[in-house]
Amino acid sequence: MGKGWNSAMYWRHLLVLSLAINIGLVAKVLLFQGAENEERLCAVEAGAEGAHFSKKAAHVNRGVGKGPSLVVAHGGRDRGRVVNLDHGDPTMYEMFWKRMDEETTIVIPGWQSVSYFSDPGNPCWFMEPEFAKQVVRIHRVVGNAVTENRYIVVGTGSTQLYQAALYALAPTGDDPNPMDVVSVAPFYSSYPLMTDFLKSGLYKWAGDAKLYDKEGPYIELVTSPNNPDGEPRTSVVNRSQGVLIHDFAYYWPQYAPITSAADHDLMLFTVSKSTGHAGIRIGWALVKDKEVAMKMTKFIELNTIGVSKDSQLRAAKILKATSDSCEGISNSKVENFFEFSFNQMTLRWMKLRAAVRKSGLFSLPDFSSEWCAYNQQAFKPQPAFAWLKCEGEIDDCEGFLKKQKILTRSGRHFGASPKYVRVSMLDRDPNFDLFVERLSTMSQIEGTTPVP
Amino acid sequence: MGKGWNSAMYWRHLLVLSLAINIGLVAKVLLFQGAENEERLCAVEAGAEGAHFSKKAAHVNRGVGKGPSLVVAHGGRDRGRVVNLDHGDPTMYEMFWKRMDEETTIVIPGWQSVSYFSDPGNPCWFMEPEFAKQVVRIHRVVGNAVTENRYIVVGTGSTQLYQAALYALAPTGDDPNPMDVVSVAPFYSSYPLMTDFLKSGLYKWAGDAKLYDKEGPYIELVTSPNNPDGEPRTSVVNRSQGVLIHDFAYYWPQYAPITSAADHDLMLFTVSKSTGHAGIRIGWALVKDKEVAMKMTKFIELNTIGVSKDSQLRAAKILKATSDSCEGISNSKVENFFEFSFNQMTLRWMKLRAAVRKSGLFSLPDFSSEWCAYNQQAFKPQPAFAWLKCEGEIDDCEGFLKKQKILTRSGRHFGASPKYVRVSMLDRDPNFDLFVERLSTMSQIEGTTPVP
Repeated sequence: MGKGWNSAMYWRHLLVLSLAINIGLVAKVLLFQGAENEERLCAVEAGAEGAHFSKKAAHVNRGVGKGPSLVVAHGGRDRGRVVNLDHGDPTMYEMFWKRMDEETTIVIPGWQSVSYFSDPGNPCWFMEPEFAKQVVRIHRVVGNAVTENRYIVVGTGSTQLYQAALYALAPTGDDPNPMDVVSVAPFYSSYPLMTDFLKSGLYKWAGDAKLYDKEGPYIELVTSPNNPDGEPRTSVVNRSQGVLIHDFAYYWPQYAPITSAADHDLMLFTVSKSTGHAGIRIGWALVKDKEVAMKMTKFIELNTIGVSKDSQLRAAKILKATSDSCEGISNSKVENFFEFSFNQMTLRWMKLRAAVRKSGLFSLPDFSSEWCAYNQQAFKPQPAFAWLKCEGEIDDCEGFLKKQKILTRSGRHFGASPKYVRVSMLDRDPNFDLFVERLSTMSQIEGTTPVP
Repeated sequence: MGKGWNSAMYWRHLLVLSLAINIGLVAKVLLFQGAENEERLCAVEAGAEGAHFSKKAAHVNRGVGKGPSLVVAHGGRDRGRVVNLDHGDPTMYEMFWKRMDEETTIVIPGWQSVSYFSDPGNPCWFMEPEFAKQVVRIHRVVGNAVTENRYIVVGTGSTQLYQAALYALAPTGDDPNPMDVVSVAPFYSSYPLMTDFLKSGLYKWAGDAKLYDKEGPYIELVTSPNNPDGEPRTSVVNRSQGVLIHDFAYYWPQYAPITSAADHDLMLFTVSKSTGHAGIRIGWALVKDKEVAMKMTKFIELNTIGVSKDSQLRAAKILKATSDSCEGISNSKVENFFEFSFNQMTLRWMKLRAAVRKSGLFSLPDFSSEWCAYNQQAFKPQPAFAWLKCEGEIDDCEGFLKKQKILTRSGRHFGASPKYVRVSMLDRDPNFDLFVERLSTMSQIEGTTPVP
């Protein structure tokens, strides 16, 4: 991609992907017929509980990625296995990073990180300078955001930064009315929960931005590409007293065309979805206004007294390896990360759309093709989540898929109809393939018969 | 200490400490006379801002710990250097961990921590099993807390766990009255800020527990040994509708006698003050009630979607090395961590009390000696902070010391008189020594003359 990725290469890759699908399908048919004694993978029946994460975390697809090689699971006993695609757990990327072991392994001596401070001269005093440097570099390489004249604030994932932004943007003083927070439905299911769980007197969730008609100050959240439906988004309320938070977690070239370098007042990013390192819990904000950046820093200081230095250093190393891979200045064997991930997403969306067509029970959003300044070609979004709709008489799509032992997240959590579900497209190959296989073989009658 | 640390060794150590003080004083006199051309260390004049951390972070004592050896700074140009002892930044421990490099260095490959999940079968689904194992072990080795039949919840420092505990203990439902949170003054200065900064409708700061006379539900915070004054503490309100949070950040044998294994409903600990790794941001809670542990987990899920896996793994390795050093099962050259840190604290408190006596302007708390079940001897607390009082007519002790370029935290932040200040005892040697040197040479007249 980028410099080293031209149109011819793109078509060559599509051909390879197409062949891969064919080979995969043939193998699947063969395996499905005779594989009754295959190893049962990943069924974890444990009892974690809580909100979206813990409520359905009882079934987490794990185990397959622990060793150095992945085993693809088809048919056989897998037919009874629960596939959990409720969370956006980005385990798909693990296989890439295993090949990049040399470039990304980090060694941290025991005496490091004794101090709370990383960079006392920076308004964000707990940010590692190397992390900030690599953030600037990756945006320059990808071209997805302006970093000039911006303050960077590091957070424990973009989740913490979202709350820091609310704290920074809500009015101070003794205003008795919390500030309204809105976003166009369908919106990320955690936004209402994160906004309201402490019953803050500073801000409160006010629902769908399209229905918002109150006067006065408000915060509008713009998630683009949108979680759950992958649509590109811009603000809709546009009143004088509004302030915007742009969540760009998915504005990376494996998911969507990079149409221009985003240039907004407050933009959120995270390694969880860009490079797929959710477990290190690192996100960053690009902030135009110094006072806002300092209030966000204050939030993080009061909330967690800073952000793990170890994870900042790891994130810096991984972002560096990613930029190096894009610029072709690392080990020549190393693939461009965004080329790898783009191809994975293309392949998965082709598989998913084929399964949806075959089944006839579902539909998916249609996207428009746009020119991507990063990889110099036009393509359609291939989001990190599928916003799947159950057609016909199926009103509870989540419940319908659950009978097939596919865990997804109902549209009602996103301010939308339960005819929709959000499905993670980022799980490991065996789980994604099993999901697609089940979807493709479903019919209205089979659909109501639970998987054994 | 522990098994390998008997009374004879204790006295031998006291002798060594005493000799070290003498040698140090002689060296200081000699150096002070002729050292006009010494390197000026650590003066950072940068402009971070915010609450306690950022407001006074302009002057952070750094730089001296970057290399493998420490340089002790005396007199000379150091006379003009700002010594920042406002924060409890535990950089004192760095020198120990440099000697333990082999046992504590961690290697993390780039493909680790892609998933949000660590242990889906645990109510705290984002906790690394190895971390939980080492938490149980260190408490068994030190004997400072009961872990049997407890749930462990990991947090981004005990700061996040404190907020998680408030969320878990405050009543759910539509109670319009936030629950009162109290603690005996002087209390940790961040407690009121952390409780009230989001104007939560679930809980609110209600001040000094000794003055609390309202009926109804409340939360009492018991910090023991107490921050800022080092006193052992028990709850004081004792009404039927109260629930307790015990903050045991400093209940470790370098600071206070371990009189028994603490056995309360909700206990908080942190590596920041036990092993001195503040920058890795890891704390843990021991929780008796499963529902409370699950609500705390839920808070952390909504606040930061879990806790850095990298830092959990590092904390596990450091706790393991600490336990190994106590049990004498690691490299024979390695010193017992709690013996090292106990001796450091003993030496520092001896130096500080000597300086306070010499000056005549200040006083320090007197402590009672108690039997320590861990090192099998009686000793007086030697807290992580000095709760220093300006005697006589000095009413603003913080301001008085600031003129001497010593930054401390005024008693008024702790619900106490501004005649008191809290002073960190955990900074690197050069800064601590400079502080003590300045204190010892202060008099009423000199004190009003700013250091050049």
